[in-house]
Amino acid sequence: MNKRIGVVGIGRMGANIARRLRDVGYEVTALYDVAADRVAELAGELGSKGYSKLADVTANSDVIITVVTDDSAMRTIFATGGDSLLSGARGKIFVNCATVTPAVHVEVAERAAAAGARTVETLMASSIPQARDGKLYLICGNDRSAFDEIKPILEKMSVSLKFVGGPGKAAQVKALINMLMNINTAGLAEALGLGDALGLDLTTLREVFSQTGANSRVLETDGEDMQKRDHEAYFSAEHAAKDSGIALQLANDEGLDLPLAAATKAQYDELVKRGLGQLDKSGISELTFKSRQPARQPA
Amino acid sequence: MNKRIGVVGIGRMGANIARRLRDVGYEVTALYDVAADRVAELAGELGSKGYSKLADVTANSDVIITVVTDDSAMRTIFATGGDSLLSGARGKIFVNCATVTPAVHVEVAERAAAAGARTVETLMASSIPQARDGKLYLICGNDRSAFDEIKPILEKMSVSLKFVGGPGKAAQVKALINMLMNINTAGLAEALGLGDALGLDLTTLREVFSQTGANSRVLETDGEDMQKRDHEAYFSAEHAAKDSGIALQLANDEGLDLPLAAATKAQYDELVKRGLGQLDKSGISELTFKSRQPARQPA
Repeated sequence: MNKRIGVVGIGRMGANIARRLRDVGYEVTALYDVAADRVAELAGELGSKGYSKLADVTANSDVIITVVTDDSAMRTIFATGGDSLLSGARGKIFVNCATVTPAVHVEVAERAAAAGARTVETLMASSIPQARDGKLYLICGNDRSAFDEIKPILEKMSVSLKFVGGPGKAAQVKALINMLMNINTAGLAEALGLGDALGLDLTTLREVFSQTGANSRVLETDGEDMQKRDHEAYFSAEHAAKDSGIALQLANDEGLDLPLAAATKAQYDELVKRGLGQLDKSGISELTFKSRQPARQPA
Repeated sequence: MNKRIGVVGIGRMGANIARRLRDVGYEVTALYDVAADRVAELAGELGSKGYSKLADVTANSDVIITVVTDDSAMRTIFATGGDSLLSGARGKIFVNCATVTPAVHVEVAERAAAAGARTVETLMASSIPQARDGKLYLICGNDRSAFDEIKPILEKMSVSLKFVGGPGKAAQVKALINMLMNINTAGLAEALGLGDALGLDLTTLREVFSQTGANSRVLETDGEDMQKRDHEAYFSAEHAAKDSGIALQLANDEGLDLPLAAATKAQYDELVKRGLGQLDKSGISELTFKSRQPARQPA
């Protein structure tokens, strides 16, 4: 029999995962979010049920997918006292998708184990449309037996499924992906910004980059957006700052000095400081194009 | 009738261009390099003639390809007095391939014009094997008529030929390519270094990077080399430091602050300072892997 699925955290990623699993025939039995209106709306759309207590989500699901914002939200939904997903969690499987500090994934997995539940770290290296279409790139870890058991579900969510190791490892890999993606993005914004200042044709420049050692995935996904200032958020600058911060903390714990990662985080922090944290990560070009600086804009 | 070709600066790029053009039927009539033994050897190999005076190269060629090391070498071969390629240069075409400061390309083009010669900036966005196989990616600029006239030659050298604009523009584009390539390389070295410190499997990590927003051309060309410490030079750390420096100078002239480009140059400068400037650009990973730090190696 199909497992009943709960989803906790129904922002754009979580909601699209729920939609996808419903589309392919799973019963999405329980939804939860801090935003009650969001819950009501999606529950109506999916013929699902929203709950205002986390324990009710656990009670009404076999597999609980969590997609929350940050370390603090992860610790809250997996609290050791009060309302928590851990209440009555024996035998349940938690699928934890949030890009948060690896140590928090480890801590939550330990708490879940103490409650008799199993946990699969399931980090998502793709964005909103891929969630909707079941084409996520998933990097999994922690509990291998639980991973094998829910593989049919994960396969419906993804085009690629990789199990990379024990507790925290998938989250570490994810932090590294985003750290490097952010560096490449910040670097691209510098190159296009300088090209713009030099009066070069940016369409030609991007084409040349794409044929040379300067090519990158973010050139494809963000290059034109930087040129055209199209910063509708798929992955926000705020998230970029957070994820680069997670990686830098890992580096710091290891006594490693990573100057480019640090410079990238400083740029995204600056963007947030300017009130532009809701822009897409491509919005970092707002810092590197001379013509886009506030002091130079008409009053 | 085929134009007679001279080549000035026969390091690995220049020598391979000469070999290629000889292979496809051009007469390589004149060679010059500061290293006399290199000249004698290649002249023997190609049935060509080496000269110890620059003016003799000009006298014995119609098209002179120059591939020298830096700004100073460019100014020396195009000196306005003494032995110079400009002596008797009326009607000749110079094909200037060195990645040097764009302003030096402009200055040399002006000097050549004053001597009655024409100049094509011909920046090469590829490496040694591509030079040998006639598969360079060439970014050209400056004199359009001269470009059109020598197109048959350039086509034998390249898979892609692009004319990007007036004096200095091709050199600016090249500086930007290398600036961005170096940033992506330095960033990759940080990500792999941190992955190594965390005990992650680097082969898996590279594969995951390749499937996600962290992907880049340098991941393909340098990722495995960083992991295996295979730093045989195709594009040396010293060159990387020089080219990032050229781009930073352009940025500085434009009043642009580019923190990632600056951090990257600092890393390559550090590598040079440690006596590792002859390593390939992938050698930057020697700075970001904990296990590779001098202080931690056995005495």
